[in-house]
Amino acid sequence: MRRLSTQEQNFKQVFADLLAFETVSDPELLKTVDQIIADVRQHGDAHVLKLTQQFDRHPAHQFSDLELSQEQLKAAFEGLSTEVREALEMAANRVREFHQAQKQDGWTYVDALGNTLGQKVTPLDRVGIYVPGGLASYPSSVLMNAVPAHVAGVQEIIMVVPAPNGDLNPLVLAAAYLAGVHRVFTIGGAQAVAALAYGTETIPQVDKITGPGNRFVAAAKRAVFGQVGIDMIAGPSEILVYAEGKNNAEWLAMDLLSQAEHDTVAQAVFITPDEQLLTEVGQWIEKHLEALPKADIARTSIENRGALVLVKDRAEGAELINQVAPEHLMLCLDEAEKMSESIRHAGAIFMGRYTPEAIGDYCAGPNHVLPTSGTARFSSPLGVYDFQKRSSLIMCSEQGVKTLAKTADILAQQENLDAHARSARYRYK
Amino acid sequence: MRRLSTQEQNFKQVFADLLAFETVSDPELLKTVDQIIADVRQHGDAHVLKLTQQFDRHPAHQFSDLELSQEQLKAAFEGLSTEVREALEMAANRVREFHQAQKQDGWTYVDALGNTLGQKVTPLDRVGIYVPGGLASYPSSVLMNAVPAHVAGVQEIIMVVPAPNGDLNPLVLAAAYLAGVHRVFTIGGAQAVAALAYGTETIPQVDKITGPGNRFVAAAKRAVFGQVGIDMIAGPSEILVYAEGKNNAEWLAMDLLSQAEHDTVAQAVFITPDEQLLTEVGQWIEKHLEALPKADIARTSIENRGALVLVKDRAEGAELINQVAPEHLMLCLDEAEKMSESIRHAGAIFMGRYTPEAIGDYCAGPNHVLPTSGTARFSSPLGVYDFQKRSSLIMCSEQGVKTLAKTADILAQQENLDAHARSARYRYK
Repeated sequence: MRRLSTQEQNFKQVFADLLAFETVSDPELLKTVDQIIADVRQHGDAHVLKLTQQFDRHPAHQFSDLELSQEQLKAAFEGLSTEVREALEMAANRVREFHQAQKQDGWTYVDALGNTLGQKVTPLDRVGIYVPGGLASYPSSVLMNAVPAHVAGVQEIIMVVPAPNGDLNPLVLAAAYLAGVHRVFTIGGAQAVAALAYGTETIPQVDKITGPGNRFVAAAKRAVFGQVGIDMIAGPSEILVYAEGKNNAEWLAMDLLSQAEHDTVAQAVFITPDEQLLTEVGQWIEKHLEALPKADIARTSIENRGALVLVKDRAEGAELINQVAPEHLMLCLDEAEKMSESIRHAGAIFMGRYTPEAIGDYCAGPNHVLPTSGTARFSSPLGVYDFQKRSSLIMCSEQGVKTLAKTADILAQQENLDAHARSARYRYK
Repeated sequence: MRRLSTQEQNFKQVFADLLAFETVSDPELLKTVDQIIADVRQHGDAHVLKLTQQFDRHPAHQFSDLELSQEQLKAAFEGLSTEVREALEMAANRVREFHQAQKQDGWTYVDALGNTLGQKVTPLDRVGIYVPGGLASYPSSVLMNAVPAHVAGVQEIIMVVPAPNGDLNPLVLAAAYLAGVHRVFTIGGAQAVAALAYGTETIPQVDKITGPGNRFVAAAKRAVFGQVGIDMIAGPSEILVYAEGKNNAEWLAMDLLSQAEHDTVAQAVFITPDEQLLTEVGQWIEKHLEALPKADIARTSIENRGALVLVKDRAEGAELINQVAPEHLMLCLDEAEKMSESIRHAGAIFMGRYTPEAIGDYCAGPNHVLPTSGTARFSSPLGVYDFQKRSSLIMCSEQGVKTLAKTADILAQQENLDAHARSARYRYK
């Protein structure tokens, strides 16, 4: 595994190159996706069915074969072993509890002139959640998308999940049942995104689409952005672990590997001022790479995009962390809370030695859909706020408007907007 | 002006067609914009200077000619007449006061197991605000973008504003001074967006770009989304006025015209259950269209996209409003507050007969950058929340982690993520 030190002459450049990850925008891909969207808009259900048969080799004969009933979801839930069902319920309950704290309410105030000003908060009417199919079909992702929508008060949650060859992960259906998803369609790809964004005969048009997907899904989400809201364009998963003081090197190694096993382009970075610990973590990673079931994926990730970075001190570590703006950040030291105060950019911050990133993926409570590729500089975890929106409220009294209308009149004239000026003037003259 | 009634057989279709507005995605435009972005990334300042000389006919000889000093901004502010300066100051103060109420704080709680969970809120480090140049160069837009960024605690606000032929609106510079903009570059178009998103030798890379622009700017913002955050893709301005009971028809007509004068594709819709009022408002619009300075623009907007709509009753009016999800909504009736409770989708709601939309453009306090083209279904006014982001906080105790780690272990095994399961297992076994 690559070892770096901030003391090396070319560190800055090497580190910047390591972090760089740009999804190549492939003109052919964009053309394909644009065509799929246009065809779905024109031909509706029929085209979605055709592409689902073609791309997913789905055995459906008619469009109605692509919708699952609530009974099917319930049966999947009831078919779980007690252990798994209880784990899923606990995760759902904790995710719900955390997200309830995120819910925002409206407010108003009366200004000195007697005018009422405020902000109204309302849920979105209907949202679509995209759940990847096949190998990456995770029940936890269903909870992380659907529960915040539910907490926000969304009336209708539509889930799409591709079912290659008609196969589905029963846990995904069980999670949909538990999270209160209203309708499930076994479709995926750009065609599913297009169907949600524009609606078809059967699939209702939604107001926002959330959830990760492959590059076709990402390109389709970017294309329909504006027609509907989208959450974010997700990149590969990342973890940055900072440790100092007494730590179990094997634990830290496994925390790093838990992201590396996701994807060959996932990124695991370890930062410490302790050279001995740096060496030990590197050794444990090597050791576990020999035995992990997903060793091939993890090894590629570790070798191509991983790094062990030696820093001078904690302050330099914090600076690097802010530069990376990691999706997942673990601060494994006694003063984790204190250090977190100097962190400006991170999707989620796991503090202390007993907070492995993996619990955040399932059941700590906070969302596991987090900003990747440095986008924590400007974006947030998926949350209830993604399923709520605001409207400004303004109500002037007959007296209170006079001062405002005069000011608006003066400024509108400066902007050469005469109707604006007159409409204001009527109210004070 | 087009008159519609919900009682007509084909009303639904006619009304839907009237609302439809789709920005055609022009492949040539996208290609041009992609090329500009690629060239700015490769050649930096030199290419931005070249395009600014070419497209804006700006007389600059070197890149440094494109940056304004704080002294220039201050001089513009001090050159204002007392009346205009005071109006601008009042507007800035009221916008600041309203946005301070939007500022969000972090929170934490301790769960029943003794684990700490929470949400940290931080400002973005550096943002870029785009201010259109030439005729549509509005000082109010400077305030509406820069003040919320300031309130959020953004450390560096970079403004770009094109200066065709080197000309600038001094009020725009004065507003930048008043709002505390840190640096101003007289550049625009896709090249300005590219420079902000990727940085050049002189222009620092920002984390988010907000503010409206022409179709090149809109296409460039869409292209750099993900590299940086963006606010929204703005469409033409809209107003929907609902009125009943005693109203001054001339006032309502001018309120509708105040949006129509913005743009030939702006949309002004009047809805009422009162046929007499419908007729009068239509007559006043015709009358004022004869005399308004921007009559040509307003007439095209009114004729092509405007409508007077007769509804059965208030409930049907509210239903139509929610279908439109208007940028600006005026509710001109005694029970405006009561009616606003049934409105789910609107950018800003102006209530009562003494709250003209125009005061919201300048000085009521709420933001005038609002979701257009029905996007109020899923998005919000520009606000302090656009310049803040959240990080999840998780800190488990040695005891408190055990229950969570066991659950994570069980679920990770179901997802075939072995390193996740092991990393959790270390903490409870």
